[in-house]
Amino acid sequence: MSSTTTLVKSGLIIPANTVGILYSFMTSTRVLSPPRVASPLPHHYYFSTSTEPLSIKDINQQTVQANYAVRGKIPIIADELRDLIEKNPASHGLPFNKIINANIGNPQQLDQKPLTWYRQVLSILQYPSIINQVNFPQDVKDRAIKLLNNIGSIGAYSHSQGAPLIRESIASFITKRDNGHYSDPHNIFLTSGASAAVSYLLQILSSDSQSGFLIPIPQYPLYTATIALNNAVPVGYFLDENNNWSTNPEEIRRLLAQHPNIKFKALVVINPGNPTGSILTRDDIVSLIDIAAEYGIVLIADEVYQENVFKGEFISMKRVLSELLEINHDKYRNVQLASLHSTSKGVSGECGQRGGYMELVGFHSEVRDVLFKLASINLCSVVSGQALMELMINPPKEGDESYPLYKSETSSIHRDLQARADLLYNAFLNMEDIKCNKPMGAMYLFPKLDFAEEDYHLLYSRARQSNLQIDDIYCIELLENTGICCIPGNGFGQVPDTYHLRTTFLPPGNEWIDSWGQFHNKFVAKYKSTKH
Amino acid sequence: MSSTTTLVKSGLIIPANTVGILYSFMTSTRVLSPPRVASPLPHHYYFSTSTEPLSIKDINQQTVQANYAVRGKIPIIADELRDLIEKNPASHGLPFNKIINANIGNPQQLDQKPLTWYRQVLSILQYPSIINQVNFPQDVKDRAIKLLNNIGSIGAYSHSQGAPLIRESIASFITKRDNGHYSDPHNIFLTSGASAAVSYLLQILSSDSQSGFLIPIPQYPLYTATIALNNAVPVGYFLDENNNWSTNPEEIRRLLAQHPNIKFKALVVINPGNPTGSILTRDDIVSLIDIAAEYGIVLIADEVYQENVFKGEFISMKRVLSELLEINHDKYRNVQLASLHSTSKGVSGECGQRGGYMELVGFHSEVRDVLFKLASINLCSVVSGQALMELMINPPKEGDESYPLYKSETSSIHRDLQARADLLYNAFLNMEDIKCNKPMGAMYLFPKLDFAEEDYHLLYSRARQSNLQIDDIYCIELLENTGICCIPGNGFGQVPDTYHLRTTFLPPGNEWIDSWGQFHNKFVAKYKSTKH
Repeated sequence: MSSTTTLVKSGLIIPANTVGILYSFMTSTRVLSPPRVASPLPHHYYFSTSTEPLSIKDINQQTVQANYAVRGKIPIIADELRDLIEKNPASHGLPFNKIINANIGNPQQLDQKPLTWYRQVLSILQYPSIINQVNFPQDVKDRAIKLLNNIGSIGAYSHSQGAPLIRESIASFITKRDNGHYSDPHNIFLTSGASAAVSYLLQILSSDSQSGFLIPIPQYPLYTATIALNNAVPVGYFLDENNNWSTNPEEIRRLLAQHPNIKFKALVVINPGNPTGSILTRDDIVSLIDIAAEYGIVLIADEVYQENVFKGEFISMKRVLSELLEINHDKYRNVQLASLHSTSKGVSGECGQRGGYMELVGFHSEVRDVLFKLASINLCSVVSGQALMELMINPPKEGDESYPLYKSETSSIHRDLQARADLLYNAFLNMEDIKCNKPMGAMYLFPKLDFAEEDYHLLYSRARQSNLQIDDIYCIELLENTGICCIPGNGFGQVPDTYHLRTTFLPPGNEWIDSWGQFHNKFVAKYKSTKH
Repeated sequence: MSSTTTLVKSGLIIPANTVGILYSFMTSTRVLSPPRVASPLPHHYYFSTSTEPLSIKDINQQTVQANYAVRGKIPIIADELRDLIEKNPASHGLPFNKIINANIGNPQQLDQKPLTWYRQVLSILQYPSIINQVNFPQDVKDRAIKLLNNIGSIGAYSHSQGAPLIRESIASFITKRDNGHYSDPHNIFLTSGASAAVSYLLQILSSDSQSGFLIPIPQYPLYTATIALNNAVPVGYFLDENNNWSTNPEEIRRLLAQHPNIKFKALVVINPGNPTGSILTRDDIVSLIDIAAEYGIVLIADEVYQENVFKGEFISMKRVLSELLEINHDKYRNVQLASLHSTSKGVSGECGQRGGYMELVGFHSEVRDVLFKLASINLCSVVSGQALMELMINPPKEGDESYPLYKSETSSIHRDLQARADLLYNAFLNMEDIKCNKPMGAMYLFPKLDFAEEDYHLLYSRARQSNLQIDDIYCIELLENTGICCIPGNGFGQVPDTYHLRTTFLPPGNEWIDSWGQFHNKFVAKYKSTKH
């Protein structure tokens, strides 16, 4: 190949040495530039000068302004670099041979294997006739038959809220998880991952452009993106990095008082934290519920990482609310809670199957009916994903034929996730001017790039010149030197003048971590004044 | 059981004889009334008088106002009646023993069997280890391996637009379908059914409350619902019932001229028609493309029923546009077309698997990038649904081991659909004061309730008293007398002072059609003056 290659989607010219080249792309306002245009339409079809096709000025500005860093500019460049490597394996001119996707929690894209229990049942649901051809455990066959008898073909639309049997099973799981506190199947909605639930909730709660949502900072950018799409106001409350990313209820109360013109609708809580990996204590949760009770705002508890706990204990918000209601019913009777779960994360890691649910507590039935209508407009969530949700929350029990393998696979994945978390965490501890809290749960680390301006004049000056943040520069150079794709902290929110990055710890092996360490040393050597 | 039964969700008291009782529910503004409230939360938790939970007055009014008749009030009542029958099979007190869901095109909820080809491949994708245990045809195994090699685990997130191999395969299908006119995989988006594509398109195009969408009347109510959610303006163009529900381009031009204050964004075309079952001619399509070229509005071609054609020929809008571009490039170079397809309909009928795609032509790349961002916020459409889409548009070929069975199953389903369509159509021809166009495609009939006021004084008087439409009354009485659930035409739109209903022709057998005929005779006898 020639020494230059065009990245077709981003329009960049990548020379044999990429370093520095990605800056121009990052600082442009385009996400992607002109597509390849193929026959029979000549190129100017897309760019005629007369009655032009709609431009971004002509469309919904909320959709233009929404940002979603997890699949934003850096991951788009990473995708194109991957294509380049695949198309020119021998001579792509890049200083690495593969892209390491640490930008998104996508376990099975890396090397996590699906659980046999899930996939055996799902294969029967897809083609029931195999039941007599395959040597699956009896409990696999029994469960498949039970699901088929109840939901019929997974090719039929289900009830808009999800198949009744599956909602009943989820309600039993919640009741058991929450120490016997009742869950009503009627208040469970099966959703396409937890994202669809967030979308429904924020859509109904955004009554006008003064509707406010309290979100943790750093946050999972689905929240800011969806708030932007609904033309509502995100109000961030900072998590306390120096106190293991804990939640400060006083700051939340202060924000509520400081913004009398905002109609606060909901308080979003992500527990275990994404991107922080922290876990809330029972006291933290009580404080948050107290705020909801006092201000009449909805609690949205994003608990999709409840299975990924390495240190401490996950306590659901529903459980704490139920306990508080027993103690002081009058105080808590109006608390409205929506809690979310998903098949995408945890040891399941079945992101592509799009399973999830939300449970509503304390909502007015009229409001729940509007959610039902939104779910109906979307017809139903994918039925195989609904079934997977059931398999996840109602797994084999001791004594079942599938149990030993299920137990061994889940334990092994759990141990492996913890080992990977520790490995990357320890690597960050050893990197100069990086600080990192010990991960307690979820799939991510959110280390601080502790590059003080007095030590890193060159870096700050480069940032000013290129109109980029410090964390943008770090992530760009990490990608173009090592192929590791992670996300600048500014995509998640951070205290002003602090810089972080979010990375999953999912990629396997030591090699990528070693390569990161070497890059980091060079980066510090390149930019730190005391090194010169 | 007692002679009365409470329908818990709708709050209705159903006596042994239901007739007439559903009216009060239909005329209430509630969709559903208070839920069962279970311990530990006492009933007043939901209805406290102090700081109340959010009511529908406090939430997004667009979500409150959106209507979606396909799963609206009548289907909700039908669901509850089904529960009642299941819980009290011996003594439910209803004059029928099952609910016939003719309200929604859901083939596998009725008795349509999934195609073996699809389900065998999908079962391997779920659990690849079965490949050596099952006696599937070699081409099934080969396709599964090809998909697995390319997309990896279906439990991983794919590219936001869908797996590249699948987009390439869809582009080849379109190119072949459209007589060699090129389709670019880069412009294909895999979506969760076609509904998600409609949602993305209407969301980006709704730039403010003056954004207008031309939609056919009658229409599939997803369009009005989504337009309402986006606070945009639906402008209906009437299809010509007397001319087999054809499209009148002059009326569309007249509407464009009549509404100078509306910023028209798109012209929605449903072909084959839902709910009309009509098919557009090439000339019709040229006229519609001419309007799009002249006014610079986007064409949204909902072509999900393209496989369900019984009479005439389906011609895709993309094909006609490509042909026009060859003839007169300057005139058509700015036409923007989004065409939609789905795995839910046709002989596939895999609604619950949520497969679909949209192809964009002529869109500015910046606008396409915003669609890409929306798709990214939703991460990806379900990957098994993406694979199903590939299996649908790239089925076994003559000579492949699977081909004979595939051919025999698809032919049989197609013949069966046509036979059911004819059966119901002929039944309507024989019903007094019902008119119906012969179905050409899709899954529905939209017969006219030709009840002139001078003949049906009693009916019109009842309608005025109960604040219902004539078609509401017909559908309510049909449901409560026969268990057949179909939808009043007013949920789809109709010329003022005309009344229709939409029904699928999918339910099997003659029995339900006979029971409808008997009901109809009684209805006419009850309400028609000349019968008294």
